[in-house]
Amino acid sequence: MKSFTEYMTMHTRNRRELVHLTPTLKTLLERSDITEGFMLVSAMHITAGVFVNDNEPGLHRDIWKWLQDLAPAGPDYEHHRTGEDNGDAHLKSLLIHHEVTLPITKGKLDLGPWQEVFYAEFDGQRDKRVIVKVLGF
Amino acid sequence: MKSFTEYMTMHTRNRRELVHLTPTLKTLLERSDITEGFMLVSAMHITAGVFVNDNEPGLHRDIWKWLQDLAPAGPDYEHHRTGEDNGDAHLKSLLIHHEVTLPITKGKLDLGPWQEVFYAEFDGQRDKRVIVKVLGF
Amino acid sequence: MKSFTEYMTMHTRNRRELVHLTPTLKTLLERSDITEGFMLVSAMHITAGVFVNDNEPGLHRDIWKWLQDLAPAGPDYEHHRTGEDNGDAHLKSLLIHHEVTLPITKGKLDLGPWQEVFYAEFDGQRDKRVIVKVLGF
Repeated sequence: MKSFTEYMTMHTRNRRELVHLTPTLKTLLERSDITEGFMLVSAMHITAGVFVNDNEPGLHRDIWKWLQDLAPAGPDYEHHRTGEDNGDAHLKSLLIHHEVTLPITKGKLDLGPWQEVFYAEFDGQRDKRVIVKVLGF
Repeated sequence: MKSFTEYMTMHTRNRRELVHLTPTLKTLLERSDITEGFMLVSAMHITAGVFVNDNEPGLHRDIWKWLQDLAPAGPDYEHHRTGEDNGDAHLKSLLIHHEVTLPITKGKLDLGPWQEVFYAEFDGQRDKRVIVKVLGF
Repeated sequence: MKSFTEYMTMHTRNRRELVHLTPTLKTLLERSDITEGFMLVSAMHITAGVFVNDNEPGLHRDIWKWLQDLAPAGPDYEHHRTGEDNGDAHLKSLLIHHEVTLPITKGKLDLGPWQEVFYAEFDGQRDKRVIVKVLGF
């Protein structure tokens, strides 16, 4: 049994942005030398998320609109009394979820043909980290 | 340490449908010969989900109504410019989440008395796959 | 390879309540004697959740308000025809999700500086269980 751990630093240009992680995850998986197991991809921040869906720009705009509808920026969140202005980013993180577990089979990410992994930044323009941990053999 | 991998093909009659997976998962667990570990149950599509909740038909109708309220079908999603008409199915998948990790203890799915596992189809009437992967010993 | 399993009993004073789990999880991790792997923290009930976010009381009030907006108590859910009155608790559990998988590195919960783990009770004032299972070496 083996484990492999890597920390990725994300620093987005925009406050809200999606980053396509699949290519990097494939490289990390090769480095891990693990062929059967699970890969956990988890944001280490409470204002970011990780999800699996389609790599289609129109859909991504739909996702942003939807996140904004269900967890809107702007309202006077109680959290803002601490001096923060990112209450919505916390709720968006809960909605999208901050982590995914990916199956690893025969040395590959065992994803469906349209499944791609994304980091969702809800309060960026600064260094933030994502942990990638593979457990298996 | 052992791993066990199985792919289930789902083909629902209706476009939107729930499929109760627990009985099949119990059979797969027996076949895996793993007594301690985790079982990952993950949709391999971006318009489907997997969740744990109650096997109660009234609640299932509540869940469908809720999904329809929070991720409605019909609106002119940007994703539809690609020729698709399933924008809502992607959002429903994000809302419900596409995977669960189940604990395996003493050779059993270690679930609470009311916990059952469901596949949620949001754009069916065609073959779609779910991966079941068990890791443990 | 080792596994460690513990069941925590939650019994909240209020029907809806958050319980900060991180200190207990750290103690359980020490007892597990596992230094590399994954910890699954999963509610064993369908009217409760587990999530990772900030330990800030104002934000917690925002989260409750948000949960109440998106999965309101009160409406005449079909589930209530069974005699239950907790339809909203099921939907809140789906929204927040009932489990998280935490990375374990060098014997520690490998969380970011602001990440804390919470149990979210949506229908409490009675004994309910959470399973904590660690898999690794």
